[in-house]
Amino acid sequence: MIEKIGERTLHFTDAPRVVGFGSAVGKKEGEGPLSEWFDKIYTDTTMGGETWEKAEAALQKKAAELALKSADLDSGDVEYVFAGDLLNQCVSSSYGLRDLEIPFLGQYGACSTMAQTLSVASVFVESGAADTAAAVTSSHFCSAERQFRYPLQYGGQRTPTAQWTVTGSGSVILSAYRDGKFCSHGEKLDEHSGNLRRQIGVSHICAGKIVDMGITDANNMGAAMAGAAADTIYRFLEDTDTVPDDYDLIVTGDLGMVGTSILYDLLKADGVDVEKKHKDCGLMIFDTDTQDVHAGGSGCGCSASVLCSYILKKMRKRELNSVLFAATGALMSPTIVQQGESIPGISHLVHLTNYSD
Amino acid sequence: MIEKIGERTLHFTDAPRVVGFGSAVGKKEGEGPLSEWFDKIYTDTTMGGETWEKAEAALQKKAAELALKSADLDSGDVEYVFAGDLLNQCVSSSYGLRDLEIPFLGQYGACSTMAQTLSVASVFVESGAADTAAAVTSSHFCSAERQFRYPLQYGGQRTPTAQWTVTGSGSVILSAYRDGKFCSHGEKLDEHSGNLRRQIGVSHICAGKIVDMGITDANNMGAAMAGAAADTIYRFLEDTDTVPDDYDLIVTGDLGMVGTSILYDLLKADGVDVEKKHKDCGLMIFDTDTQDVHAGGSGCGCSASVLCSYILKKMRKRELNSVLFAATGALMSPTIVQQGESIPGISHLVHLTNYSD
Repeated sequence: MIEKIGERTLHFTDAPRVVGFGSAVGKKEGEGPLSEWFDKIYTDTTMGGETWEKAEAALQKKAAELALKSADLDSGDVEYVFAGDLLNQCVSSSYGLRDLEIPFLGQYGACSTMAQTLSVASVFVESGAADTAAAVTSSHFCSAERQFRYPLQYGGQRTPTAQWTVTGSGSVILSAYRDGKFCSHGEKLDEHSGNLRRQIGVSHICAGKIVDMGITDANNMGAAMAGAAADTIYRFLEDTDTVPDDYDLIVTGDLGMVGTSILYDLLKADGVDVEKKHKDCGLMIFDTDTQDVHAGGSGCGCSASVLCSYILKKMRKRELNSVLFAATGALMSPTIVQQGESIPGISHLVHLTNYSD
Repeated sequence: MIEKIGERTLHFTDAPRVVGFGSAVGKKEGEGPLSEWFDKIYTDTTMGGETWEKAEAALQKKAAELALKSADLDSGDVEYVFAGDLLNQCVSSSYGLRDLEIPFLGQYGACSTMAQTLSVASVFVESGAADTAAAVTSSHFCSAERQFRYPLQYGGQRTPTAQWTVTGSGSVILSAYRDGKFCSHGEKLDEHSGNLRRQIGVSHICAGKIVDMGITDANNMGAAMAGAAADTIYRFLEDTDTVPDDYDLIVTGDLGMVGTSILYDLLKADGVDVEKKHKDCGLMIFDTDTQDVHAGGSGCGCSASVLCSYILKKMRKRELNSVLFAATGALMSPTIVQQGESIPGISHLVHLTNYSD
């Protein structure tokens, strides 16, 4: 059942369960601090595709397939796939997933897409609209760089506030669980898994409003998104009457170094100190000292691949039991920024909880 | 309550009600056959914006405001807005709607977006995740032309199968209605409206799969989308065990002349004849004999502005009582078509029903 809490939070009393997840990343991500946690590391970042767009589509397909495999399900068992990405007209999703033949509802939340796809999929699953749904997203350094910045061959200088788009994809499969059992595919889901597949549930979501901090520098996305992250995290803590210490981890998507410090300042001004509990996926996936990524990682695939590797695997080990996942997006296009517009940010939050049954 | 029917259809037993809707279009659309039905016709297609992208954002904002006004609601009464468009990174939605401060879940379904936003909003409202939600989309001839085809100044020749992107936007406000009353804002919604605001409900949705007919000509979108429309309409009729004669109108989004004739052929091969009941928004909004639009209108704003004017107004007059709205989208980008890929289509279907209470 879906309960509204406070102004903007939804509580899922049955908590759609994370029955499977998968992550696939590129070479540079595979050389970073989270190397051991990823399911698939490509050393050839074309992923066998002829173009960067086709490479990203292949990457997204791989993550979706890994998630299905980890759930022991086939694409035919999934009723809806919620997917999106940064490419114009979200083509890595539509081309990457077209062969799966799952009813497709494209989502666009820029780099907040992983939290958005999980949120909407959770509402579908908790409400009975679906027994099983998938959430997927991706980004690719090379397709993003030429679309948002410069052709790779140009070798443009990056500013200190710039972030490095992650080549990565993550996918989660959610299944409805009620009255102590899975609503569908229970036989498949329970097999060989002990209670692993009923362990992690989506207990709350809090959708974001568009927050515009007036930033016009497309090389300073962290700053553009920090206000949105602060707004959503603050709203969720107020709505649920909780404090950062109630959670094992509060993770943002890709604020990077600049955005993270702004987030701390904004929340402190509202009397909330998240610093002890907070990590940012953009600072987790790369070693910013040695990997030359400037202010950290970014892209839909950043928070998606960190969630679908380190975070969910740590939850399965019960080393993390209650996680706020607040992915962050900058809702701009190069065209409209060149027209002098500021960059609006958004952040959607998903609360993941370990259940004991 | 949400009931699953057949393979892919959802039945909403309480049927989220269309409590308000609004449409805004450009000059050419205002000179077409549906002229009298639109709420707002701009004669200056810049809508006061400095660029075509800002013009489209203004257009989308206008439709959302008209819908709110027609529902007697403020933006603060709306819990979620589901919106998307054709522009890179869906910027007409994010920039058009950022001032409304409504939690924002961006949707991408290309020209099927109106049906997709209505579908997802319906699930949120019927499930209790929201009492009130908005669905919005738009397209603009000038922003689409330069992004997908050529700069306007180039004056490129159009092929006979090409369609004319509609400058238009439509918005619907849905509210939860249960046990004979609105779940929220009942006082506002019932005031002065008789039972108009409880009359039209979303009774079913059927989400689309990605269907690729192998079309590689970006000037023949109707053909690329026809297979998806046929697939979804056929699926819905099978799932609900109904025939075209059970409906007053079966309307597709923007198949145009070419796509419409392919739709008839594909459905006839499956033993379904929709011809007598079918219209296509792309052929309704323009007079193809006199308005020089070649195969008809297209764009997210095509089906959105026709739905939110002619169709919903005819329903309120009870001249139409049961309508299948199957918007159609081509999930491609110019980049990936230039790379030789075929164009996948999608079609989401929404069944709108007049209720007597």
